[in-house]
Amino acid sequence: MKKKERNLYLSNVDVEEALDLYFRRVDEHLYGLDVEKVQVIESQGRVTASPVFARLSSPNHNAAAMDGIAVKAKTTFGASEANPMRLKQNRDFVFIDTGDPIQEPYDAVIMIEDVVEIDEETVEIIKAASPWHDIRPIGEDIVAHEMIVPSHHTIRPVDLGALLSGGILEIEVYRKPKVGIMPTGSEIIEPHEPMGEGKIIESNSRVFEGLIKEYGGNPNRYSPVADDYGLLREQLLAAVEENDMVIINAGSSAGSEDYTVKLIRELGEVLIHGIATRPGKPTILGIIQGKPVMGIPGYPVSAYFVFDTFAKPLIAKYLGQGVPNRPRVEAVVSKRIVSALKHKEYVRMKLGMVDDQLIATPLNRGAGATMSLVRADGILIIPQNSEGVEAGERIQVELLKDMQDIHHTIVSIGSHDLIMDMMGNYIHRQNARYHLSSAHVGSLGGLMALRRGEAHMAPIHLLDEAYGEYNISFVKKYLSNLDMALIKGVKRIQGFILPKENPKNIKNFHDLTREDVQFVNRQRGAGTRILVDYKLKENQIDGGAISGYDREMTTHMAVAAAVASGAADVGIGVLSAAKALDLDFIPIGDEEYDFAVPTKYLENTMIKLFIKVLQSHELKESLEIMGGYKFDRAGEIIIIN
Amino acid sequence: MKKKERNLYLSNVDVEEALDLYFRRVDEHLYGLDVEKVQVIESQGRVTASPVFARLSSPNHNAAAMDGIAVKAKTTFGASEANPMRLKQNRDFVFIDTGDPIQEPYDAVIMIEDVVEIDEETVEIIKAASPWHDIRPIGEDIVAHEMIVPSHHTIRPVDLGALLSGGILEIEVYRKPKVGIMPTGSEIIEPHEPMGEGKIIESNSRVFEGLIKEYGGNPNRYSPVADDYGLLREQLLAAVEENDMVIINAGSSAGSEDYTVKLIRELGEVLIHGIATRPGKPTILGIIQGKPVMGIPGYPVSAYFVFDTFAKPLIAKYLGQGVPNRPRVEAVVSKRIVSALKHKEYVRMKLGMVDDQLIATPLNRGAGATMSLVRADGILIIPQNSEGVEAGERIQVELLKDMQDIHHTIVSIGSHDLIMDMMGNYIHRQNARYHLSSAHVGSLGGLMALRRGEAHMAPIHLLDEAYGEYNISFVKKYLSNLDMALIKGVKRIQGFILPKENPKNIKNFHDLTREDVQFVNRQRGAGTRILVDYKLKENQIDGGAISGYDREMTTHMAVAAAVASGAADVGIGVLSAAKALDLDFIPIGDEEYDFAVPTKYLENTMIKLFIKVLQSHELKESLEIMGGYKFDRAGEIIIIN
Repeated sequence: MKKKERNLYLSNVDVEEALDLYFRRVDEHLYGLDVEKVQVIESQGRVTASPVFARLSSPNHNAAAMDGIAVKAKTTFGASEANPMRLKQNRDFVFIDTGDPIQEPYDAVIMIEDVVEIDEETVEIIKAASPWHDIRPIGEDIVAHEMIVPSHHTIRPVDLGALLSGGILEIEVYRKPKVGIMPTGSEIIEPHEPMGEGKIIESNSRVFEGLIKEYGGNPNRYSPVADDYGLLREQLLAAVEENDMVIINAGSSAGSEDYTVKLIRELGEVLIHGIATRPGKPTILGIIQGKPVMGIPGYPVSAYFVFDTFAKPLIAKYLGQGVPNRPRVEAVVSKRIVSALKHKEYVRMKLGMVDDQLIATPLNRGAGATMSLVRADGILIIPQNSEGVEAGERIQVELLKDMQDIHHTIVSIGSHDLIMDMMGNYIHRQNARYHLSSAHVGSLGGLMALRRGEAHMAPIHLLDEAYGEYNISFVKKYLSNLDMALIKGVKRIQGFILPKENPKNIKNFHDLTREDVQFVNRQRGAGTRILVDYKLKENQIDGGAISGYDREMTTHMAVAAAVASGAADVGIGVLSAAKALDLDFIPIGDEEYDFAVPTKYLENTMIKLFIKVLQSHELKESLEIMGGYKFDRAGEIIIIN
Repeated sequence: MKKKERNLYLSNVDVEEALDLYFRRVDEHLYGLDVEKVQVIESQGRVTASPVFARLSSPNHNAAAMDGIAVKAKTTFGASEANPMRLKQNRDFVFIDTGDPIQEPYDAVIMIEDVVEIDEETVEIIKAASPWHDIRPIGEDIVAHEMIVPSHHTIRPVDLGALLSGGILEIEVYRKPKVGIMPTGSEIIEPHEPMGEGKIIESNSRVFEGLIKEYGGNPNRYSPVADDYGLLREQLLAAVEENDMVIINAGSSAGSEDYTVKLIRELGEVLIHGIATRPGKPTILGIIQGKPVMGIPGYPVSAYFVFDTFAKPLIAKYLGQGVPNRPRVEAVVSKRIVSALKHKEYVRMKLGMVDDQLIATPLNRGAGATMSLVRADGILIIPQNSEGVEAGERIQVELLKDMQDIHHTIVSIGSHDLIMDMMGNYIHRQNARYHLSSAHVGSLGGLMALRRGEAHMAPIHLLDEAYGEYNISFVKKYLSNLDMALIKGVKRIQGFILPKENPKNIKNFHDLTREDVQFVNRQRGAGTRILVDYKLKENQIDGGAISGYDREMTTHMAVAAAVASGAADVGIGVLSAAKALDLDFIPIGDEEYDFAVPTKYLENTMIKLFIKVLQSHELKESLEIMGGYKFDRAGEIIIIN
């Protein structure tokens, strides 16, 4: 492996300063984005380059506002209940329908409900009509030459209606800004290529494409380029030529394969390299031939937030639009979040309404955690000068999902099992309004969350060593102040998760102490960890004698993945996790995976739906395929306190 | 004109009841919407038909979390500051970059900042590494076989990233529901056709197309069909065959050209005809061959709300999604709104933040008012059993625009002039964050709005008869409790607006009393109305002697439109309105059109922007083209109290 040069000098520019500086520099170059004409019927989502004035009035004629008869108002004067007046067709009146034009000499409408038909050509009225009564005058809605939409307006469906009614067929809009996307890196492969050692599937460019389209731009993705200066240079020159702005992805960390900053410096100018943000620090903001060229880090979450912070406002600027910001909502944060003073941080949060309080819980903060973006309900922005937030603090969260969805979400915090994703899937299928949100913090963490009023339910599987019983005594112990119930869930099999064929012939807990055996554990507070410690105690084994006892994973699947990859020789987990990754499994025993729920929620529509799905045929079928589950008591409710 | 049959029997079914009844009937037919496979990279906006599980883990290998060296943890035990340890390349360590795979026998990473390079193949460390330190294990983000997205999930850009990273190339999604749109009516013309007597440009179908696309459906618009039973029948049969649901537009009023209800009854079943909603009463909900077929009224605003109430949820149902509801916000209503008890009403509202209070003002309630939909910031729904709301009442408003935009809107309530649209256009061009919202209620109405704290400014042109002076004395009189300023605007010319060539030879106010002359007036409280009354008084003419004195229009353009159409022979208004419609004009005199503003707003960024635009070159150029304006004092600030 070659020795590499290191560029250790990244700046740490404040995000707002960076935005300000960058935008002032690119501003000089952003005027004069081309204007094009489009058909009104194809203009949805486009941004007007100039105001649009009506060509015609609407209505374009004086029109009857009701079905009835058109009369000359003067003719009807004197008609009353005491003195009904008869009118002759085609002399005093004509029948007319809503929207029909009012012709001379008529100048008023009497609605049909106020007209009595006497015979074929005669009607009777008992009330006079005032001039222009029940007539929609020309231009009542749109007057020719009035402005229908201003410039820099994004065309919505309702605007289409007004434009067409005003006689407009074509409008002038801004050309969509072209955004070049260059994925780079020798480790990158396209999704359809076979996975190889050390390879990473290129995905950020597709996320960018999607976001660019949402913001009204035209994405232009180039094929991935390896870390070769010459190839990168050639592609970058082409990209700058063909687009209004360019995003180069990956290779922007201060590492030896970092050509991006050198390239931008050579072909143009690097304004900033290194932003005080987490994730996303090694961002590069540059200009080549007057066009913005950005180096965005490769880690998916970094890529997302850097794009959101810098590329999105640029696209908005090209289109003369304000930056589309996410709606904000106030919430209470459920756990302490620590943040360094040196950077601004974007923390992904889950949100839930519990007892009319909006609770926000942080998700995994690793910069590569794509799933944290998928699962996030909102973002908490911790400013650079802040050390974080305390549990219970009121915070502002930017919404990534609809508040409506969040209101209709069951908040589950506690122990992880594969069935929770399946439950969420079936709940949403049963009733599209509802969602299940699962946070995996372990069984004890779940009970603590219930105690603090942050969840509707906690999945737990806590073995009471003294009684050999599951769950009930823990609920009594930790939640003595709340009226609690236990919804029975499933019985599942726990055991040793081993590589296929169990090459190291691991059979029992004593084997874990072997020098050649690497163990991987669960986190403290997890029901599985409690089971492990119970078993070790039963076997009189000290955790310290096990290599890897301190290595903690937070889900069954993570344990299975570690074993499958060779990062560990054995772990303890559920059969379904081993089965999912085609691993060997030696059962230790059954355990009960139940749901602790405050009794006040039992009548809640969402919880009733949860129980219904828990007892459903579809779930049973899925569990049978997943393996290792028994569900004869599923949905049974036990009142504890 | 033929005599027509009348169907006077419309029901008045409660909206919620209608929805419930209709959905229970169509439910039987909605299962089994086809599923199709799409490429992940083309799946944005599509709805998953089944949950998607990862095929690969991500990372797919144990990866270095930092740039540095990969070591065997055991080897490093004992290293400390007091006891630095030297390591040899390729025996004890290798250099490694972030993301690179960890190869046997290495099992930990020490970041480069903690490594001192001694020579070509030797480094020194002062701290031991624990096993798996700074390594991202396989599956840290996504574990093979875990659920990435559930079913009935709409794919967003972030989901694309996770799916690709999980090795998924294709997913199963629901086919987009096909929605057939049939515009009908003999008065309908296509936008490109020449306007004719009594014709109406077909526009609702395009609004539906846009909305259907937004909701994830596939619109399928048919060419407009005249009111011919045979032709309609043929097209409806084809539409039912080719689509999942059909919308028939127009012709659904209880009028003689109403074939829609007969047709649906003949080919299938009419469940409901007539809903207790305003606008939108004559809606038809039917079923043909198991598919929903709706008759939606032709008036644009009725069409919009009926589509929103009935078609939108149906499309959501097809896709297994919850109905996308508009966000709600609480506001204070600025004027009394009366509503009948017999129907649910959708009132279009303008919203503005004034002194941290969100104020809602109703717009024009005519069902044909397309521009009210374009201009509306929100909808106030008045339930069926409510008689309306009082001024000052707190109400829930459904947002049609972003709250961000509403926060950045200058609220102007008062007298109308063409320059206000132009001002709004230029303000938004100057700074895409800002908007100008204009409500036309007349000069006095504007002052009252300021008094109630509902606006930032009131455009006024009120002539003080005693002093022959404009505006200042009225501000003093009506707003004595507020510190007020007057921003000078423009001088504009008022006069008689007359048909081209002035065929009736109208020269002065006395001519208005002629029997052959139809006048059209402005509404009480309008500055122009005050001018008219002043002039009549000056000429000793009684308003009652003028035919049409009671006929009130609310804007200059409406007056001009009435004259242009022949609905009136003369009106009083500004030169620019006459010029816009190519009408004759006899000047009466100059008047001053200024802006009354509470002094506390003068330092407001938005107001300063307003003044800047008022004094801008672009505005002056536009005013010159519009005609009749003088602007030498524009932007001057006079402190009144």
